[in-house]
Amino acid sequence: MNLNLIKEFIAIVGKELVFVSEADRQAYSYDAAVLTPQIPALVVMPENQEQLGKTVRLAYENGLPITVRGAGSNLSGAVIPSSADSVVILTNRLNRIIEINKEDLYAVVEPGVVTSVFAETVSSHGLFYPPDPGSQTVSTLGGNVALNAGGLRGLKYGVTKDYLMGMEFFDCNGELVKTGSHTVKCVTGYNLGGMMLGSEGTLGIFSQLILKLVPPPKASKAMMAVYDDIAKASETVAAIIAAHIIPCTLEILDKKCIKYVEIHTKAGLPVEAAAILLIEVDGSHVQAVEEDANEVMTLCTKCGATDIRPAKDADEKNKLWEARRNALPALARARPTTVLEDATVPRSKVPNMVAEINRIALKHNLEIGTFGHAGDGNLHPTILCDRRNKEEFRRVEDAIDEIFDAALNLKGTLSGEHGIGIAKAKWMEKETNRATINFSKKLRLALDPKYLFNAGKKIL
Amino acid sequence: MNLNLIKEFIAIVGKELVFVSEADRQAYSYDAAVLTPQIPALVVMPENQEQLGKTVRLAYENGLPITVRGAGSNLSGAVIPSSADSVVILTNRLNRIIEINKEDLYAVVEPGVVTSVFAETVSSHGLFYPPDPGSQTVSTLGGNVALNAGGLRGLKYGVTKDYLMGMEFFDCNGELVKTGSHTVKCVTGYNLGGMMLGSEGTLGIFSQLILKLVPPPKASKAMMAVYDDIAKASETVAAIIAAHIIPCTLEILDKKCIKYVEIHTKAGLPVEAAAILLIEVDGSHVQAVEEDANEVMTLCTKCGATDIRPAKDADEKNKLWEARRNALPALARARPTTVLEDATVPRSKVPNMVAEINRIALKHNLEIGTFGHAGDGNLHPTILCDRRNKEEFRRVEDAIDEIFDAALNLKGTLSGEHGIGIAKAKWMEKETNRATINFSKKLRLALDPKYLFNAGKKIL
Repeated sequence: MNLNLIKEFIAIVGKELVFVSEADRQAYSYDAAVLTPQIPALVVMPENQEQLGKTVRLAYENGLPITVRGAGSNLSGAVIPSSADSVVILTNRLNRIIEINKEDLYAVVEPGVVTSVFAETVSSHGLFYPPDPGSQTVSTLGGNVALNAGGLRGLKYGVTKDYLMGMEFFDCNGELVKTGSHTVKCVTGYNLGGMMLGSEGTLGIFSQLILKLVPPPKASKAMMAVYDDIAKASETVAAIIAAHIIPCTLEILDKKCIKYVEIHTKAGLPVEAAAILLIEVDGSHVQAVEEDANEVMTLCTKCGATDIRPAKDADEKNKLWEARRNALPALARARPTTVLEDATVPRSKVPNMVAEINRIALKHNLEIGTFGHAGDGNLHPTILCDRRNKEEFRRVEDAIDEIFDAALNLKGTLSGEHGIGIAKAKWMEKETNRATINFSKKLRLALDPKYLFNAGKKIL
Repeated sequence: MNLNLIKEFIAIVGKELVFVSEADRQAYSYDAAVLTPQIPALVVMPENQEQLGKTVRLAYENGLPITVRGAGSNLSGAVIPSSADSVVILTNRLNRIIEINKEDLYAVVEPGVVTSVFAETVSSHGLFYPPDPGSQTVSTLGGNVALNAGGLRGLKYGVTKDYLMGMEFFDCNGELVKTGSHTVKCVTGYNLGGMMLGSEGTLGIFSQLILKLVPPPKASKAMMAVYDDIAKASETVAAIIAAHIIPCTLEILDKKCIKYVEIHTKAGLPVEAAAILLIEVDGSHVQAVEEDANEVMTLCTKCGATDIRPAKDADEKNKLWEARRNALPALARARPTTVLEDATVPRSKVPNMVAEINRIALKHNLEIGTFGHAGDGNLHPTILCDRRNKEEFRRVEDAIDEIFDAALNLKGTLSGEHGIGIAKAKWMEKETNRATINFSKKLRLALDPKYLFNAGKKIL
């Protein structure tokens, strides 16, 4: 990049916060997706909103592609720079929690606040911010909004979408746009926050978020249910919903996941099982939670669970969730490359989807472990492979194609929570139609006429 | 309108569903807002999606302004035709409930389904659709989405926004755009449904909605708390939230409302009171609801309620809510014109807002009754006046100006649930800024380049 332009970025944020060396730039060339990295031309780290606005304006005026990056934990390539002349804008220093309002149950934050840091801070104020994406210990709230991140609590508490009350963002001219409010209800102007949710950095650059908070549950109860047939686990999910109990978490691990988690953690998981469900109910009344937990256990038994292990205390509960949290890391250790998908189906279609995944694995001679949010129909089929083996990776790509087809045939969707990014953009038309793509492009180009915001992603 | 064009509309929907007589057109010249009516050139009532798409395309190709109308219960002028050459598209015959899915907790509906008809149908399937705008017995689900309608259950259950999972709509070319999914989680493509929420017919014409359903509460408990000082009622609201109890409904009526409701209904309301709170708690466990209700009553007493009247049975509960539902009709009987506002503030600012409203009423010598969703900070100051009295109506307009200013000064918003329409468009920039207006216009013109979708509303 030409030196004068670099100097202009330095004039905005200072020398220490503009990264030009190849080593530095390389660090921002990839994200958590299995995709080809792209080294950007420059990396800039604004420290406040004014600097952020000026950085956006300078880059846009000079025709530089812009990719905003929080933690880089994205799984669809949404934070891989678009091209060699890209500027990566880091939000990590925009990490102030500006306000936590206990009376009106909201918080105002900058986009670079780490999700779990925020959740803990909120908790220390006696409140609760439920969205808990798997990457929460590193992911940022801005990234969560840009991807509409989900997590384990979607079934009862919803996803990031359900907590965005308002926001400020910079448009392509570096002008600050405001939408939403500090109020529970607001219909003033377009719901631009709704439009920004899941827009993956293609419509504007977030500078401030207003997030809804809720009272924390006062009691919870977790358990593991063991099955010799994954269909019975799915029947249990349906039975729980039919009984109108909405657990805060309702996760499934299939045989392969159980095996690898056990190898990895020696947690005492039932390796002979076909599947386990991990279930947690919570609420504001101890007795009511107890009743729900008992009813869930009865339903597990009725649907054929061979064993039910309730967590006796917080320690045992943590152990259960550690098993779930270890699913991906354990699978990732098995082979050099881990391809994690998140095709999602209506929850009643989980058994069909699992059967499809297993059929596809067999057909392409691949090892696929499946875990995920059974209560949301949001499965994570995880393909264990080696990207360097071109023949095998072609089979992986074919399998992914077929997994998406299977999800769509079951009235599902390409992505429940990981986003479209680079990885899934080419499938978009299959789920929607040409008119939807054209409409989305019109929208995007109106707000980014030079096509510089995360070009080549989301909508092609 | 020229006859050949009328024939083309007739060719699409049939002669009986194109209304050309002045009497017919007059019926669609106004909505529930106190604004000047505008007779449209033509009214068309498609019966199915194909007809809807063709109607939109024909109107747009011929440069006719389009206003979509459900029940016409809008309070901000959003369904008053834009100009004399407008086509009004009625959705009333697009009123099929296509699917109610009990396993996956969603429904697929056409936009013309009446809200309460839908809620009752859902209820007959053992499920619950919470959004309950005051106009629910006539309002349509399409209108609810177009305005992001609220209602009495916002505090605990959220508003329409929280129930839209996906939709299909026609763009300006009459092409069908699809967004969202039948799944709990979906991040595939732009969140176009989020963008459409509250867009007031300016971005596209809804043809199908996917709405989230939830299990119904198994128990509920309602009560009235009486106060000799409205500040004490507000303190109670704060105390309930601080105790982490989230009632499903938490409404306030001030002295004037109590007076007129009592004149109107003779329900035995405490006419000497300064304010009453109407509170309902609900949940899935009888005992837990009982405990919450008891704690709420304790808090009411602690905050100075002079009387607490729990509803002993369903009958008494209905009577309580009838008093609330009668607030607007009762006020409306007092004078020829009723101007209903919905400026909204963070809930802790309700006492300040009520004080401001009373100050403004005194200053302009106006009678203003205030009721509303205290738990949401969503008040409905209702100005009793006579529009034909120009001098008085000028004072009304000045008072509205000042009410909005007061709400914004308290970190509130112009509209909690009624929408911007014609009535509030000129205030938009005050709440946001010029950049937000410009951004919104760019967005709008990209999707409606001829500016035919509800022109002159929402964003000016």
